[in-house]
Amino acid sequence: MPLILVTNDDGVTSAGIHALADALKPLGTVIVVAPTQEASAIGHALTLRRPLRLETVGPDVYGVDGTPTDCVNIGVDIVLKQKPDLVVSGINKGFNIGDDVTYSGTVAGALEAALLGIPAIAVSLRRTKVFDFSHAAEAAAAIAQQVLAQQWPARSFLNLNLNTGAPKGFRITTQARRNHVTQISSRTDPRGQDYYWIDEGLYDWHPGGGHTDYEAVMEGYVSVTPLQADLTDYDALDAARTLLPPATR
Amino acid sequence: MPLILVTNDDGVTSAGIHALADALKPLGTVIVVAPTQEASAIGHALTLRRPLRLETVGPDVYGVDGTPTDCVNIGVDIVLKQKPDLVVSGINKGFNIGDDVTYSGTVAGALEAALLGIPAIAVSLRRTKVFDFSHAAEAAAAIAQQVLAQQWPARSFLNLNLNTGAPKGFRITTQARRNHVTQISSRTDPRGQDYYWIDEGLYDWHPGGGHTDYEAVMEGYVSVTPLQADLTDYDALDAARTLLPPATR
Repeated sequence: MPLILVTNDDGVTSAGIHALADALKPLGTVIVVAPTQEASAIGHALTLRRPLRLETVGPDVYGVDGTPTDCVNIGVDIVLKQKPDLVVSGINKGFNIGDDVTYSGTVAGALEAALLGIPAIAVSLRRTKVFDFSHAAEAAAAIAQQVLAQQWPARSFLNLNLNTGAPKGFRITTQARRNHVTQISSRTDPRGQDYYWIDEGLYDWHPGGGHTDYEAVMEGYVSVTPLQADLTDYDALDAARTLLPPATR
Repeated sequence: MPLILVTNDDGVTSAGIHALADALKPLGTVIVVAPTQEASAIGHALTLRRPLRLETVGPDVYGVDGTPTDCVNIGVDIVLKQKPDLVVSGINKGFNIGDDVTYSGTVAGALEAALLGIPAIAVSLRRTKVFDFSHAAEAAAAIAQQVLAQQWPARSFLNLNLNTGAPKGFRITTQARRNHVTQISSRTDPRGQDYYWIDEGLYDWHPGGGHTDYEAVMEGYVSVTPLQADLTDYDALDAARTLLPPATR
């Protein structure tokens, strides 16, 4: 039986993680290790400055007072005491698409698994007032089954995103380029002091000829983007050389 | 006069950020906006769940009770009220090289600037007991001068790393692949409860034929890696198609 570790960034009590875990149970032994508190937009953060506590929340369900990246490490080293066959992170309440994947705790959980050499999938669903996780859970299980059956390349992982409603099918996509910028809301507190709140902002993406994750979800498909950890801008290596003092080029 | 925004993740009181700001002052107007508390290994985190406060720490020096990514947004929108010509993040106490750049708050500050379309540089120095920031500050200023003089490609940014001592010169590099995994130290508290601490772990990198950031710093060069935000694994797009249910490929 394959061993599957499930994490998220919305927290161990989120309905999305339990819908996901239930959908994966026909495929193997499913162990949930997730943050005890919500850790959205936490990026690929590791908790270094304080110790972490692990608590048993229920049968095969554990909470860690840290980030999704912490959860993957504690899950593999302390809970499972071995590498699982697959890590699945989600189902996140809200898209994790385009350049915004770099902020995502959900995606970071899958990235951490990939860096440990474990196949991994992140799953996110468009934010709405009432969430129906059924289609996202089904899509994640369908892809998970294939990843377990095949030798998925180490250090690569999959980022799934779904719009609301029944998807039309799957589309392999690339990460969309963001045009929008983060908006900041300026306010004044009851004591006359200014404070600032980071806003969701506008939502504007560079068109990618129908190949991007953003376009796929907007057209009603499950977006499946293979991601990896290498940020090197290979196209800029030659341009970078022109920045160096001449003697050292 | 060019306008230069300086941030970091070690905090606004760190000696590294002031060595950097001083070295950049001959190039333009330098404004420091940095976390009031240390935010190492915070990744590309945005603070969404609570408001942020901005405080004046000194002339042209501001503190924000958030992450480096928050600082870049507050710095551009609230402090400068315009896009600067350059964002420089650092000087970090400790390397930010290889796959570990994905955890780095220092690198995330520069990444955020790149996503806003602002040229950016991250600067990190090997961790030692006593830090001498002079060579790193000088190297950062030399590269900053070139970036300001040229039209550096938008959405790309530069990740500088230095070993201790005077560097032999500069080398353009790629992000090294990590072989090491995060280590977890298990301990028991005075009340008999287990707790866990994320360790620095072993430090082992995949050799890259002399082209990687890790090899450059180990050989005594300033490593200059052009980075960007697109995590798409273009080499895995075809393999990913084989994961889809046949009817939808």
